[in-house]
Amino acid sequence: MTGPIERLRQRTAELSDLGRISGLLDWDQQTMMPPQGGPGRAEGRATIERLRHELFISGDTGELIDAAEASLDGADPDSDDARLVRVTARRREKAVRVPTELTAEMARAASIGQEAWIKARADSDFASFVPYLERNFELARRYVDCFEDYEHPYDVLLDDFEPGLKTSEVVRLFGELKAELVPMIATLTENADRLDESAIPGTFPVDRQRQLVSEIVRRMGFDPSGWRMDDAVHPFAASFGNRDVRITTRWDETNLVSALYAAMHECGHGLYEAGIADSLQRTPIGQIDSLSMHESQSRMWENMVGRGRPFCGVLAPRIADLFSDVVPNLEPDAFYRAVNRVSPSFIRVEADEATYGLHVILRFELEQELIEGKLPIRDLPEVWNARFKEYLGLEVTDDALGVLQDVHWSFCAIGYFPTYSLGNLVAGQLWDRVCRDIPDLDDKLAAGELGDLREWLREHIHRHGSKFSTTELLHRVVGGPIAVGPFVSYLKRKLSDVYGVELERPGAG
Amino acid sequence: MTGPIERLRQRTAELSDLGRISGLLDWDQQTMMPPQGGPGRAEGRATIERLRHELFISGDTGELIDAAEASLDGADPDSDDARLVRVTARRREKAVRVPTELTAEMARAASIGQEAWIKARADSDFASFVPYLERNFELARRYVDCFEDYEHPYDVLLDDFEPGLKTSEVVRLFGELKAELVPMIATLTENADRLDESAIPGTFPVDRQRQLVSEIVRRMGFDPSGWRMDDAVHPFAASFGNRDVRITTRWDETNLVSALYAAMHECGHGLYEAGIADSLQRTPIGQIDSLSMHESQSRMWENMVGRGRPFCGVLAPRIADLFSDVVPNLEPDAFYRAVNRVSPSFIRVEADEATYGLHVILRFELEQELIEGKLPIRDLPEVWNARFKEYLGLEVTDDALGVLQDVHWSFCAIGYFPTYSLGNLVAGQLWDRVCRDIPDLDDKLAAGELGDLREWLREHIHRHGSKFSTTELLHRVVGGPIAVGPFVSYLKRKLSDVYGVELERPGAG
Repeated sequence: MTGPIERLRQRTAELSDLGRISGLLDWDQQTMMPPQGGPGRAEGRATIERLRHELFISGDTGELIDAAEASLDGADPDSDDARLVRVTARRREKAVRVPTELTAEMARAASIGQEAWIKARADSDFASFVPYLERNFELARRYVDCFEDYEHPYDVLLDDFEPGLKTSEVVRLFGELKAELVPMIATLTENADRLDESAIPGTFPVDRQRQLVSEIVRRMGFDPSGWRMDDAVHPFAASFGNRDVRITTRWDETNLVSALYAAMHECGHGLYEAGIADSLQRTPIGQIDSLSMHESQSRMWENMVGRGRPFCGVLAPRIADLFSDVVPNLEPDAFYRAVNRVSPSFIRVEADEATYGLHVILRFELEQELIEGKLPIRDLPEVWNARFKEYLGLEVTDDALGVLQDVHWSFCAIGYFPTYSLGNLVAGQLWDRVCRDIPDLDDKLAAGELGDLREWLREHIHRHGSKFSTTELLHRVVGGPIAVGPFVSYLKRKLSDVYGVELERPGAG
Repeated sequence: MTGPIERLRQRTAELSDLGRISGLLDWDQQTMMPPQGGPGRAEGRATIERLRHELFISGDTGELIDAAEASLDGADPDSDDARLVRVTARRREKAVRVPTELTAEMARAASIGQEAWIKARADSDFASFVPYLERNFELARRYVDCFEDYEHPYDVLLDDFEPGLKTSEVVRLFGELKAELVPMIATLTENADRLDESAIPGTFPVDRQRQLVSEIVRRMGFDPSGWRMDDAVHPFAASFGNRDVRITTRWDETNLVSALYAAMHECGHGLYEAGIADSLQRTPIGQIDSLSMHESQSRMWENMVGRGRPFCGVLAPRIADLFSDVVPNLEPDAFYRAVNRVSPSFIRVEADEATYGLHVILRFELEQELIEGKLPIRDLPEVWNARFKEYLGLEVTDDALGVLQDVHWSFCAIGYFPTYSLGNLVAGQLWDRVCRDIPDLDDKLAAGELGDLREWLREHIHRHGSKFSTTELLHRVVGGPIAVGPFVSYLKRKLSDVYGVELERPGAG
């Protein structure tokens, strides 16, 4: 006899399988599929999403949840079972409001949009992308219309990437963040001449970059028996369980660190997926639904570790050795300064840690205006470019370096961008905590030993999957909700050091 | 308003999507998935097969078929619509007899078995593979038990790979074939000294082999915008529609032609998939269910073209050029003789065209005995080796070269092997026809022009998908059912030429 919890687990295991399969269809499309496969793949993705949605919203699944809930009577509300029931019920409440056909249509549009974006970006041809973008925002608005009782239509979208978070709260956090970043960037720009290092010039053959990246991600925890790494137009991470984790990067011969930091970033995501407890596999709480928390992991590995002074002492000599014909004398201090230079630039994923937030805030504002219908898609490049000039001081003359640079809108991921900056904030909070929990962390990182950090993250964050909301998990680990202070403190400390100027520390607020 | 046919088409399109997705899960497992992903993948494959089966056998699908059938009234029985209904109804009649859980269990066992096979084969460790093989044959017997009214339990399995064909018919055809092959091989073995060429010795770096293979498959019709090629332990072809065709091969530095002919073989399969009419995509008749016909395509490209004298005149100089440090003076005639030498060997997929049939007949016999329970799995290596000695005169001392060499049983494909030799027979019949339809075919092949042959095959075979059964299609193209004569004639003609001996032509029978 199987009990109500076990029966619900069987159903959610199937749903989890379908989610993973949907993820594989996407991974394959982005890494392997020949271009002409696009239309067929779009149908396949629509079909799998339709079936997944139908199964999830079926009355049968509802009854399984109800029965499981009733059987919980008295169980620890933090137990896996209780959390499983709660998370499933919450997600289903949202899903039942959405017609199956809309779900399928969004999956189809996502798949088609991605192919259109690849072409439009390659050709810097925004006009060719307009119909797809219009379609995707129209679908997003239809999706929003399935719900009521929201403060802002954007809340509905945001909730899919960061459950429970409200637009108004993001507006508040980003306001606070922007107020810190703008003067910080101004001060650093004034002091630009104190930093003679800029990007490390030279040609860095891709095969040796591959060697470097492979060594570094293995130090982080990449294990070929359960991971793989491929090339993609837009780097991303995917996982089909904690034993099948896939990361991607892209290569640029003229940029020594672009692929390296992209890979460390994606490997940070991968470690989160790989660290989810075995007991949560094939359950809804084995799938992370807080992208802010996810991004905190990738950004921490990329920036706190990868661009931190201790680990630069590992990277620089290895790079000098591998590229002894290009940068034989690369010094850790010089490397550290070069990779932390603050300088407005066009591409978000290659932005420094200070200007990065402004890239995200720009997108967050535009998304709200687009979803409210205040901004027509056709006007997007013009508005993007004007605001980019205002926030970052640069003139965008090529849409591939502007509005076409990111893949997200092409696959209907609207409301996703804020989680990138929220991830930075969360990373700041966690880094603050981990530095206190592991007092000799700097020494470990300087020795290239990344295991202690990885295990701390696994213990405190990764293994829980989605058992706890971001707010709950942050309360457990750092004692409060998402906050701006720790990230800004971290950044000012680091950049004061890099530039040799004293950046004002944030106040008590 | 959508009519009954259109409604059935929508349902079968979804089923077709699920079939393609299932195929992608398999392709990914065989080419990309990290090894630890195995158990998770097995669950995913079971889930997708369960859902596909449930949807197919649902009363709802039955009603759609009935309504479509009723609406056909008076339609041309050879029209796409009429064939679509008939093929769907036939497949569903078979599917409804099989419990969903058995379908899911077979998918799970297939996925797990494949991983176990890779390891067992690498270690030449049959004992470790025994539990998986026992499980798979047990599942096959349970599958057979779902049916009644068969002459032989093996009929049920065979029908999945060659619809409608009976074991007794294969016994008759293979008896006839064996009666031709055994004396032919004996004569050629006696005359072995007339052929001083043997395998082309040397070390052939894989990167240049990749170059060669890439050039040749492109000549055949491989188009990177709709195809891809990867490495796999056991070469195979897969497709997810006619615009996403994937072939695989494996590389051996010590063997100049192994990867080349494997790739031509798989590309032959791929051309079949790529040639199916657009109008049949995402329908049940857009998916080939005759593996004999499929194999006729791969074997024709591999052997009639690739090992034929005309195209050897294209291959040899290109090889001499690419490997000018190894075989600078490779002559077409010498190459032709070397790649057509008849000599018993261990590995089926590398066997010459004459001994190949005996490899298949061995497996066909063993499968029948295994499925009838007459032969325990544990005794399989012993019986395999004894019969291999009897048929091919060689002593198997390593199970990796014997019973562990093929992937098929590991993924529950029991009843598949006969279609390989049947494919040779069909290829012989079609080759006979195409040589008459394209009188200057030899000249074209000698010039490296493969387009006429490809287009003939597309027109007469590929575009139809599964609209016609093998028997029906053969009647349309060659005027009769599967027969042994043309293949044996072709083989005797070729080998008489290669060896300079007169092999007796088959009689009028």
